[in-house]
Amino acid sequence: MEAPSNITIKGILGLLTANTDGCKKVISLGMGDPTAYSCFRTTRTAQNAVVEALQSANFNGYSPTVGLPQTRKAIAEYLSKDLPYTLHSDDVYITAGCTQAIETTLSILTRPGANILLPRPGFPIYGLCAAFRHLEARYFDLLPHNQWEVDLKALQGLADHNTVAMVIINPGNPCGNVYTYRHLKEIAETAKRLGIVVIADEVYGHLAFGADPFVAMGVFGSVAPVITLGSLSKRWLVPGWRLGWLVTSDPHGKSPKFMERLKKYCDINGGPATFIQAAVPAIVGETQQAFFTKTNNLLKQTSEICYWKIKEMDCISCPSKPQGSMAFMVKLNVSLLKDISDDIDFCFKLAKEESVILLPGAAVGLKNWLRITFAVEPSSLDEALQRVNSFCQRHSCN
Amino acid sequence: MEAPSNITIKGILGLLTANTDGCKKVISLGMGDPTAYSCFRTTRTAQNAVVEALQSANFNGYSPTVGLPQTRKAIAEYLSKDLPYTLHSDDVYITAGCTQAIETTLSILTRPGANILLPRPGFPIYGLCAAFRHLEARYFDLLPHNQWEVDLKALQGLADHNTVAMVIINPGNPCGNVYTYRHLKEIAETAKRLGIVVIADEVYGHLAFGADPFVAMGVFGSVAPVITLGSLSKRWLVPGWRLGWLVTSDPHGKSPKFMERLKKYCDINGGPATFIQAAVPAIVGETQQAFFTKTNNLLKQTSEICYWKIKEMDCISCPSKPQGSMAFMVKLNVSLLKDISDDIDFCFKLAKEESVILLPGAAVGLKNWLRITFAVEPSSLDEALQRVNSFCQRHSCN
Ligand SMILES: Cc1ncc(COP(=O)(O)O)c(C=O)c1O
Ligand SMILES: Cc1ncc(COP(=O)(O)O)c(C=O)c1O
Repeated sequence: MEAPSNITIKGILGLLTANTDGCKKVISLGMGDPTAYSCFRTTRTAQNAVVEALQSANFNGYSPTVGLPQTRKAIAEYLSKDLPYTLHSDDVYITAGCTQAIETTLSILTRPGANILLPRPGFPIYGLCAAFRHLEARYFDLLPHNQWEVDLKALQGLADHNTVAMVIINPGNPCGNVYTYRHLKEIAETAKRLGIVVIADEVYGHLAFGADPFVAMGVFGSVAPVITLGSLSKRWLVPGWRLGWLVTSDPHGKSPKFMERLKKYCDINGGPATFIQAAVPAIVGETQQAFFTKTNNLLKQTSEICYWKIKEMDCISCPSKPQGSMAFMVKLNVSLLKDISDDIDFCFKLAKEESVILLPGAAVGLKNWLRITFAVEPSSLDEALQRVNSFCQRHSCN
Repeated sequence: MEAPSNITIKGILGLLTANTDGCKKVISLGMGDPTAYSCFRTTRTAQNAVVEALQSANFNGYSPTVGLPQTRKAIAEYLSKDLPYTLHSDDVYITAGCTQAIETTLSILTRPGANILLPRPGFPIYGLCAAFRHLEARYFDLLPHNQWEVDLKALQGLADHNTVAMVIINPGNPCGNVYTYRHLKEIAETAKRLGIVVIADEVYGHLAFGADPFVAMGVFGSVAPVITLGSLSKRWLVPGWRLGWLVTSDPHGKSPKFMERLKKYCDINGGPATFIQAAVPAIVGETQQAFFTKTNNLLKQTSEICYWKIKEMDCISCPSKPQGSMAFMVKLNVSLLKDISDDIDFCFKLAKEESVILLPGAAVGLKNWLRITFAVEPSSLDEALQRVNSFCQRHSCN
């Protein structure tokens, strides 16, 4: 198995897709991009706001590299609704998607000898980015039988005086977890004790449809320094728009040196298109609650289809029901399959025989697990899971 | 004076603008963003292509991180017109503006101990980016009395076995140069001798309105390895759209290791908006020549206004007439001014007294020079130069 820093989700999914045989229609439960399905189409409000900003011809020029003032303000107001304090425009840096927010955060936190604590399973861009920035990645486990909570005891054993930060992804990719207030508080207290920053990847913020509500990590910004990362990509179903943010959710103020480095870094990364930025106040201000409710209801429905269908399969088990995001992890029992050596083998054979794409757990750091994306139109999802079931039966030992 | 890696053009222009006193209308000849003027408005073809791509709702999703296939193909075809060979889609990587192409190139070329040769005067993002990537910047001079050609002899003295690349900007920012075929060939031969890559920043490609035509550095891709960087920003007057490219213009093929690193790097930088990418085939394929001609004629006109008005001023001289891009360098003779200590002092006092913004040469590596952007609506340009003239007379020793 390659080290996580050498695998990207897109890379492996590309290989799997190339491995399909062309007989059946390919159905991908591989990537968190549901925009191909009309039931996951963004709202007219958002689309019209961008068209208007573009047609005004007032936003063809450069924006400040930290973002347009009105965009920073709109995001500050949007995120403040989830917080016990008010963010200011200056706390917000507009980035080309959450991806660039990750890249920026890791680049400015790195220094010679530094290390960062990353979740396993996790999102491979963190490992890849850390490798490019010479930031040592140390992996802590998420506990499958504990709603994928962070193994905080083990995490403390990984940290030393060169540890600069830990990453949490909530709602979680690839696990589908939504952390409780209590667990987030424990995370903040642990970070405080270790003297490290919490990088809270909330790209799936508000995509929570289980028992626990989404709680922003910034709620604990007074306990430990928190950098919150997010984007329009998931909640507004527009990953291709590349509009994200990096927010220093730290009501006690932040180091001027850090802020200066951050500002300079923005000069070299350029940021997202100005006219898309200009549409953000209307996008976050005017999107109807009904749009969000519809998406969450649909995700709840599709996640349950997945969960129950998987439960019927002998060789796959599912330690916890997905509560949020667009994907979850299920465990493969290869000992029940006669000619499958591991998760990667499973996924390649599945792609070839059934034209269904699943992500091998190895790609997110967990061998012999699978990541299933349920942000898929229900009938395609049904069909795909049907095919997975046939595949499993065909390869079963019995 | 701060090291170049600590100054950004946007940073210093922001300080200068804050230093105006509010009496007169501020006119900036500081930045290469003319989109505020209606005479420098992009073509409807480009705008409509983006609106259509957006409204189709087919491009809200992720693109491959190297760029959409049709976008790569369109840029390959567009650039091949300037080359004696044909670029392939695979040679083209789509980036969020030329800025991200710079950042990507420097990040993938760096290794412990490496250095890069940068032009002085130059574009500060290179120095800033090199500093973030622990790539040592070594500056070679451009020769003002030689059409700002590269001092190739001195350059060779700077290079050693840790030198990975040299950067040329053609048409030139901040100098307004357009290099001849002969000089570009010399550059390629020098790079070959030194065993280094030529990074050709052609963000101002085709904005050439003097005696010499624009010649793409890729023409010499068979002499030395060339990485060409560009974007829609300048020629299409849409810097805010953040659509650029990185092209390996090397007909003899490239190192597989390099290409793999480049592809992975694209995964962590995310790239530009998918729907803007989707509009690129129409933008580069259908823009009328008349649009380009109009822009170049206007730039020729405004550059000449600048050149002749500056020539009348005693304390400022201009070694060569601008031939391309949107800006050029002029030399300040502070000894003729009674109370001006240097270029920075000149610019701050000019901003305060006349509300005209010029960029101090120090910001691009040349103390006691000034960079003047002439991509400005002619009447505003006239007015601004009038004010510079009054300022110079008022501060003159005589
Ligand atoms: C956990 C996580 N973080 C960040 C991203 C990237 O977000 P964006 O598309 O806004 O760049 C993703 C995308 O799937 C993700 O799953
Ligand atoms: C020489 C040079 N390179 C690169 C850039 C950045 O181009 P873009 O706006 O496409 O990021 C500029 C912008 O002014 C420039 O002058």
